[in-house]
Amino acid sequence: MLSAEIIAIGSELLTPNRVDTNSLWITERLNSIGVEVKLKTIVGDDEARLEETLRDALKRSNVIISTGGLGPTEDDITRKVFSRVLGRPLILNEQVLETIRQRFARRGYRMTPNNEKQALIPQGAEVLPNPNGTAPGIFVREGEKTIFILPGPPREMQPMFDNAVMPILSGSSKGVHICKRVLKVSGLGESAVDDMIAPIYTQYRNPTTTILFNMGEIEVHLTASGKDEQTANELLDELEIKLEEKLGHYLFARRGETMEEVVGLQLSVKGYTIAVAESCTGGLIAKRLTDVPGSSRYFLEGVVTYSNQSKVDILGVPEEMIVKHGAVSAEVAEAMASGIKQRALATIGIGVTGIAGPTGGTEEKPVGLVYIALCDDVHVEHKPLILPGDRQMIRHYASQAALDLVRRRLL
Amino acid sequence: MLSAEIIAIGSELLTPNRVDTNSLWITERLNSIGVEVKLKTIVGDDEARLEETLRDALKRSNVIISTGGLGPTEDDITRKVFSRVLGRPLILNEQVLETIRQRFARRGYRMTPNNEKQALIPQGAEVLPNPNGTAPGIFVREGEKTIFILPGPPREMQPMFDNAVMPILSGSSKGVHICKRVLKVSGLGESAVDDMIAPIYTQYRNPTTTILFNMGEIEVHLTASGKDEQTANELLDELEIKLEEKLGHYLFARRGETMEEVVGLQLSVKGYTIAVAESCTGGLIAKRLTDVPGSSRYFLEGVVTYSNQSKVDILGVPEEMIVKHGAVSAEVAEAMASGIKQRALATIGIGVTGIAGPTGGTEEKPVGLVYIALCDDVHVEHKPLILPGDRQMIRHYASQAALDLVRRRLL
Repeated sequence: MLSAEIIAIGSELLTPNRVDTNSLWITERLNSIGVEVKLKTIVGDDEARLEETLRDALKRSNVIISTGGLGPTEDDITRKVFSRVLGRPLILNEQVLETIRQRFARRGYRMTPNNEKQALIPQGAEVLPNPNGTAPGIFVREGEKTIFILPGPPREMQPMFDNAVMPILSGSSKGVHICKRVLKVSGLGESAVDDMIAPIYTQYRNPTTTILFNMGEIEVHLTASGKDEQTANELLDELEIKLEEKLGHYLFARRGETMEEVVGLQLSVKGYTIAVAESCTGGLIAKRLTDVPGSSRYFLEGVVTYSNQSKVDILGVPEEMIVKHGAVSAEVAEAMASGIKQRALATIGIGVTGIAGPTGGTEEKPVGLVYIALCDDVHVEHKPLILPGDRQMIRHYASQAALDLVRRRLL
Repeated sequence: MLSAEIIAIGSELLTPNRVDTNSLWITERLNSIGVEVKLKTIVGDDEARLEETLRDALKRSNVIISTGGLGPTEDDITRKVFSRVLGRPLILNEQVLETIRQRFARRGYRMTPNNEKQALIPQGAEVLPNPNGTAPGIFVREGEKTIFILPGPPREMQPMFDNAVMPILSGSSKGVHICKRVLKVSGLGESAVDDMIAPIYTQYRNPTTTILFNMGEIEVHLTASGKDEQTANELLDELEIKLEEKLGHYLFARRGETMEEVVGLQLSVKGYTIAVAESCTGGLIAKRLTDVPGSSRYFLEGVVTYSNQSKVDILGVPEEMIVKHGAVSAEVAEAMASGIKQRALATIGIGVTGIAGPTGGTEEKPVGLVYIALCDDVHVEHKPLILPGDRQMIRHYASQAALDLVRRRLL
């Protein structure tokens, strides 16, 4: 099996401000054509360290893919270091320079001189066009080794990878196809899921199974390898069916879909509409529902009634109910759900009220207490939740539970 | 300078579903006490490969920190592999087992048998307590080398790192203190910012400067090293003042704050309130504003008026205005802003309407066209935007521009 090594370049990747998502994306693409990623290294904008990393990589790997450090600024050192290590001087590529110039002109900008740097290409290397940015990618064949030097921004790197890198590597790899599938579970803990399905998945060495806990969802990752895509998928199908049977209605996604995509599809299929009244989630549920393209078909409106007054004014929650039970109560959650349903004339209304913290909690109503409610034409229900974690986690979990309430109602 | 190596363990980190945020967080903590991270490696739940990685790491690094693979499930292999490579058999630690049992009992759960595995500790290793989860950390001294084996979930790993790992490493590192600072710029491109400030920052070797483009914001990262924290901070201060002068009102954050934190602080200081009417951003602006703890002081309410009817009903946008100019128009954006301001009795009302795509665009009004508007007691203004990218980017950029409009108005 062909194996590859990824080098992610950029000091920002050694800070807590930025994550290296590129290598994850690249890994999946490589896996899909049977290329294994042996190692991923992350280095800063540090010439000496990048040089060392690249020299090591050239010793051990036949396919090397770097991302980042091709920009116009002083700290972008990738071209320089690769040129030095590969012993190929940088040469100004007039055609690339002209493309960059035209790109600026089209947008009505003058090209600043530092952008010229991006037209420097190591001698004998191939240029990989970049329709989504100024820096082209670079492809070098060095004996048995292939080296791809790609830009860092995903929207530039990804199309370049699919259009230019994949065809080159697909030709070199053969015979193994790896397929992955992600099942998602809601409403159970990681240990409980493992207890439930370990007796099944441990009987299989192919596919392999990994269970992950991710922001209130349990993900079950299945990876199968076969001589072609169909064989690998058949292996996945067999295990998936058994796991589905066992997990029942706890399983909400079979292909890694998000909860909002699943709910959106249910609403679309049934021709239902939805409206959301949020307090502690502050617009997060509306935001998640409208993250899905085409959500205007079923999402009618959302309100973020943070103040008590707005709950009364917009949703018609009775003032005396808030006084008697408090804004964070089952009664108010249900009144919010039915209020927004009526006001938007939607099939389903959702109401959420709670205490996301860090302040605002009391002995009786602690931070993390959230009521979610659902109202449709025949029924109104609520669910109290005690959610762990910080403000962001509480808000996320609450939005997830509210969407799951809709999903279960629509099953 | 003491140097460290980080090994992140977990097959999920070799998929596009999960990013290794732990190593980034750890890197900053280590830098702050003058410990340099030389290499970061990411390996899957693969015994042979982890063993190879660990053996290599032991050859080259004196401080090794691993995260992940300590869970209760079959695929958690970290304990086993470290035990083997270090030649220290796993021994059941009764005290740890009791702690885990009690943890389950407190939550009213029965401990499943697979959790017992988490009480296995390599011979002669120290246990690092985990108040936020079941798996304790493990600390091994092996001659000159120190090895920290930490759990993967950040809310377990981070407190453990601060409480147990930092004190041990602080004792071993001395003499160098590294400080970082993040300035953020809105409304300028990466090249333009670099053109503007490169003449200043290139005069400094300490601090070093890195410019990053991140979701519509330009981040200027400054890193200084000094013999102590004060010295490093003084170096940062000197450069920061010069950059601030140059960047003027384009600079919106000096300590890496988010735009919503900056706007929230401005509103708090002035005692103003805000209400938001969103169409294409679908609740994202309300969500961002309410991400900030204490935002209930200034955030009154938000509405997501996705349908035309809801724009008329909730915000009082005249129906004939929508017919004449279209829902995506400067007129409707301003009417939304003034409508929500009036309805919520807020100091500032925000209105956003646009086409986030992927469908819904026309020749005249393409995907990416967004109008943002602001209304306060004396004035109403709007700004048309043509935003690049996909649905998520357009929505994010629009929310950023709307918040920046508030920030500039409140300067």
